[in-house]
Amino acid sequence: MSPIGPGGTLGIVGGGQLGRMIALAAARYGLKTHVYCPDPDSPAFEVAGRHTRRGYDDEAALVVFADQVDVVTYEFENVPRRTAEILAARKPLRPGVIALATTQDRFAEKSFVAKLGIPTAPFRAVGGEADLLGALEEIGRPAVLKTRRFGYDGKGQVMIRPETSASDAWRTLRGAPCILEGFVDFEEEVSVVAARTVGGEFAAFDLCANTHSHHILDTTRVPAGVSGEAEREAVAVAARIAEALDYVGVLAVEMFLVRRGGEEHVVVNEIAPRVHNSGHWTIEGAATSQFEQHVRAVCGWPLGSAERRGRVEMKNLIGHDADRWRELLGEPGAHLHLYGKSEARPGRKMGHVTRVFAKP
Amino acid sequence: MSPIGPGGTLGIVGGGQLGRMIALAAARYGLKTHVYCPDPDSPAFEVAGRHTRRGYDDEAALVVFADQVDVVTYEFENVPRRTAEILAARKPLRPGVIALATTQDRFAEKSFVAKLGIPTAPFRAVGGEADLLGALEEIGRPAVLKTRRFGYDGKGQVMIRPETSASDAWRTLRGAPCILEGFVDFEEEVSVVAARTVGGEFAAFDLCANTHSHHILDTTRVPAGVSGEAEREAVAVAARIAEALDYVGVLAVEMFLVRRGGEEHVVVNEIAPRVHNSGHWTIEGAATSQFEQHVRAVCGWPLGSAERRGRVEMKNLIGHDADRWRELLGEPGAHLHLYGKSEARPGRKMGHVTRVFAKP
Repeated sequence: MSPIGPGGTLGIVGGGQLGRMIALAAARYGLKTHVYCPDPDSPAFEVAGRHTRRGYDDEAALVVFADQVDVVTYEFENVPRRTAEILAARKPLRPGVIALATTQDRFAEKSFVAKLGIPTAPFRAVGGEADLLGALEEIGRPAVLKTRRFGYDGKGQVMIRPETSASDAWRTLRGAPCILEGFVDFEEEVSVVAARTVGGEFAAFDLCANTHSHHILDTTRVPAGVSGEAEREAVAVAARIAEALDYVGVLAVEMFLVRRGGEEHVVVNEIAPRVHNSGHWTIEGAATSQFEQHVRAVCGWPLGSAERRGRVEMKNLIGHDADRWRELLGEPGAHLHLYGKSEARPGRKMGHVTRVFAKP
Repeated sequence: MSPIGPGGTLGIVGGGQLGRMIALAAARYGLKTHVYCPDPDSPAFEVAGRHTRRGYDDEAALVVFADQVDVVTYEFENVPRRTAEILAARKPLRPGVIALATTQDRFAEKSFVAKLGIPTAPFRAVGGEADLLGALEEIGRPAVLKTRRFGYDGKGQVMIRPETSASDAWRTLRGAPCILEGFVDFEEEVSVVAARTVGGEFAAFDLCANTHSHHILDTTRVPAGVSGEAEREAVAVAARIAEALDYVGVLAVEMFLVRRGGEEHVVVNEIAPRVHNSGHWTIEGAATSQFEQHVRAVCGWPLGSAERRGRVEMKNLIGHDADRWRELLGEPGAHLHLYGKSEARPGRKMGHVTRVFAKP
């Protein structure tokens, strides 16, 4: 499989802000882009040379799309497996079908991580109310019941506290196959955003600390302020996960930082087989952005330097936060990014702002 | 005239790499872009939400284009005056018709600069061979005969040395209206890239030193390595020019650095009413890029910080230089940009590479 060169076409499945920022990075390297997304208002359409507005189950359209591009990537982990297989049969799909299948099912994902000997929260598959009662018996409360598939930003999950009725919790998720996860008493939520090439080259950006608001990422800070040992452990965990998935592209591994015996350690929470919101700081904060790094990896090119430029803070602009755009434009050193979404619905990611401070 | 906001549409006249990089910067702020260019292979088309492929003299198409955008800018100074007027009658055209008309005619441009009391090379308008002989008498040799319009990258100019036949020189330029410019014995070619807003706010990037090869920009270095006095003089000159043109957007003023009485001074060579090749270093080398700065100015937004991030070198990739893309991708700290041009003709600007070194 020869690598693609400038002038080639990168196919991107999914037309949200992540696809948009991948397309912008690809353009910088002289690549053409073709975005596939059913949504007519896809922000990525505006910056891509071509787009296809068809369903993910439209096999004929997927075949035409694959024929028009040189390599295919995606911006979200819920690409249906059949869609991925159709594309992968025709063009290099990076990351591959296995990474996608493993990470789009929370139970498969946690089982995969646990099998590598990497700590996760205790978890059990839950197929029915009886399962849930048994799992709660084993794991204890508080615990979180999550749908195995299609959850993001806190959607598809319910906290089970000592007083919560298990039946109610189960009904809330409407009988979808679930996973029960034990509660982790963490000090910090951190993530590793890293890239791996076809040849196995691996490069991680510096570990970042994340705070969430209403289950949506609010702020990312780098450096994360954890011990050097914990940071090395976190990066090593991400590298093992990438290796085991034979991963190509950028991935994010969200982790909990916990204290055991006076030392900081990491517990894996979630793997995102894609560029990630907690990596947006790299656009101004690192020598190579996560989007450039992803394009390099999926095209079969060498990775760029992941070196950090200073102390960095990234803040998401959710819903009407983006109304402050003019004030943010006027703030020296604030780097404003807006995604071109027309309607500022509550909870909708409209943009972000990155502040880079001199190196400490 | 109210400023446009994110979600608005920026119209860009011209579809080359400068238009492309303006469109990429606009996208980052959530703007839509619409590129107008007659060339079917326009690199900017690939990154713009809409494009119109019609001639610059197609009044009906220009009117439709103007109706579909909120503000219009351009990426090259040879936009015909009539084209500019049609657009300016319908939407804010930034920079305006006066900036365009002044800078697209070398004689008008030099006359304008001289009238401000700013030093230029000695110059005379040349309408025929007899004019040329008279002008050579006054200015002396060596001198440069240039067409008043449509010259760029050394096209449309001929050096008149002591041994050159004036008749031959005149015939080389095929009887086009010309300007004869005296030769300036310079120490360095420098340029100021700066932005001015509708309200008169002005911000210059640091002065850069440029080297050319075969009349095409080869390398830009920042800092330029000139005295603080000379740098302040250069920026003050650019500010006066921008003010006098009631300029809105980014402009570049190319200057010669000369030594007079032991001191460095500047002599204005050329004004480019647009983003400029010698400002490409700002993409990674400054807090705000020249493209972002231009978008901010033409949209009526506040300017960003023009602060430099370190010592910077930008090298153009001309013709087959771009074949080295893979090697450049593998060089740590090298920021590669390719413009998506399909054919690497000799002398064609295919991309550039920027290297940022730690602050001295």
